[in-house]
Amino acid sequence: MRHTPRPASGMLGILGGMGPLATADFYRRLVERTPAGSDQAHLPVVLWADPAVPDRTAALLGEGPSPVPALVEGARRLRDAGASCLAVPCNTAHAYVEQLSRATGVEVLDMVGAALEAAARRVPGAGRVGVLATRGTRLAGLYERAGERLGLDVVQVPEPVQREYVDPAIRAVKGGADLAGPERWLAVAAASLRERGARVAVAACTELPLISGAAARVLPLVDSTDALAEAAVARLWRPGEAIRTVVRTG
Amino acid sequence: MRHTPRPASGMLGILGGMGPLATADFYRRLVERTPAGSDQAHLPVVLWADPAVPDRTAALLGEGPSPVPALVEGARRLRDAGASCLAVPCNTAHAYVEQLSRATGVEVLDMVGAALEAAARRVPGAGRVGVLATRGTRLAGLYERAGERLGLDVVQVPEPVQREYVDPAIRAVKGGADLAGPERWLAVAAASLRERGARVAVAACTELPLISGAAARVLPLVDSTDALAEAAVARLWRPGEAIRTVVRTG
Repeated sequence: MRHTPRPASGMLGILGGMGPLATADFYRRLVERTPAGSDQAHLPVVLWADPAVPDRTAALLGEGPSPVPALVEGARRLRDAGASCLAVPCNTAHAYVEQLSRATGVEVLDMVGAALEAAARRVPGAGRVGVLATRGTRLAGLYERAGERLGLDVVQVPEPVQREYVDPAIRAVKGGADLAGPERWLAVAAASLRERGARVAVAACTELPLISGAAARVLPLVDSTDALAEAAVARLWRPGEAIRTVVRTG
Repeated sequence: MRHTPRPASGMLGILGGMGPLATADFYRRLVERTPAGSDQAHLPVVLWADPAVPDRTAALLGEGPSPVPALVEGARRLRDAGASCLAVPCNTAHAYVEQLSRATGVEVLDMVGAALEAAARRVPGAGRVGVLATRGTRLAGLYERAGERLGLDVVQVPEPVQREYVDPAIRAVKGGADLAGPERWLAVAAASLRERGARVAVAACTELPLISGAAARVLPLVDSTDALAEAAVARLWRPGEAIRTVVRTG
């Protein structure tokens, strides 16, 4: 018997570890969203999780070392193991996905674009989409640039709300603190987005789904981890289908 | 800045896909059981999931192709990506772990031994440990041989109970059927182990934790997926610690 390790549609490479629990969460959602009728029909996956990748927000703020060497090394290992398409389950790391695609020659799924498209589908004609994100994702303008491409108006929370509600909420999840307070803080942040005219919002940090219950009662909320899982399934399980949310080389 | 991709304690390779959901479940438990105070302190992990690996039980029954070529290919890719130790979250695939270690020169964690040791810790002095497993795991005598090494008496359910309760329960989980019936069937199987003198049992198939609630009220039940996650943490996060549950080369 000749074993064929890769189907024609290719293999998904997951560049993870940012953080480890968000990576495990993404992988589980990917399996759950794959419309496979048996174990054997699921996507082939190779995953690289080096949790020592330097903090992305600290690097974008100029307060820490660049994560690029570690990210490029991981992406190259995934390519060498056979990955034909990469998923990076960390919104802030999307500041570097063009570099990753150039360094490896492998296409990278665009979680930011996929999340905005999911928001537009969730509330058709919304026009203005709110974003709950890390300070690094804001500074890099990731959602603003993707919004321009997709014809969506993107709005962030006011700076004092970022400082006093969103930043501490993300820190609390990473630190494993009690989450009742952070859940209320995120609802305050969602209300500030609604006041700025957003009719739907994106939980644009893979830590946020854990505390988004109250915020989702303020405003329809789309989860960027889910959007990335759906983009991966669309790309590899239905390879014939057109998809805009891919960063291609060069 | 020089980036160091691997800490001194090495990198865990996960040979997954058998099935995909069990692999995602194992990875999540690994992260949750790692005593890391920050993202950066977690274990580096590389994971290979080729769900097309032929069914292990069918192969052991002589009714299907061998999974060995696919398993060896996956193990080699993990070694080439830098794995210093392999975890295989599928009990039945442990019929082949010596071959995998020989083919790659990399040590493989022994989920079967780890699960039996966990059962012995759970009920000290139990002496006789019951096993709920696939027909392939039974046929290969995996738990019986590990029991001999560890000085534990291993008992399986009677053949009619395997056929009428355990096999259909595992099939129901894999097929995504309603799980209320399968949960009752597994409790019947646990009762048959108690009648045979077992004072603790191992859920020795990574599908079983999903339906083990009622069985765990009949007999203390140890989960093999948890035992493998704990063995991986012991091996890589505390590398100085002695550990018996590793299959070494040659």
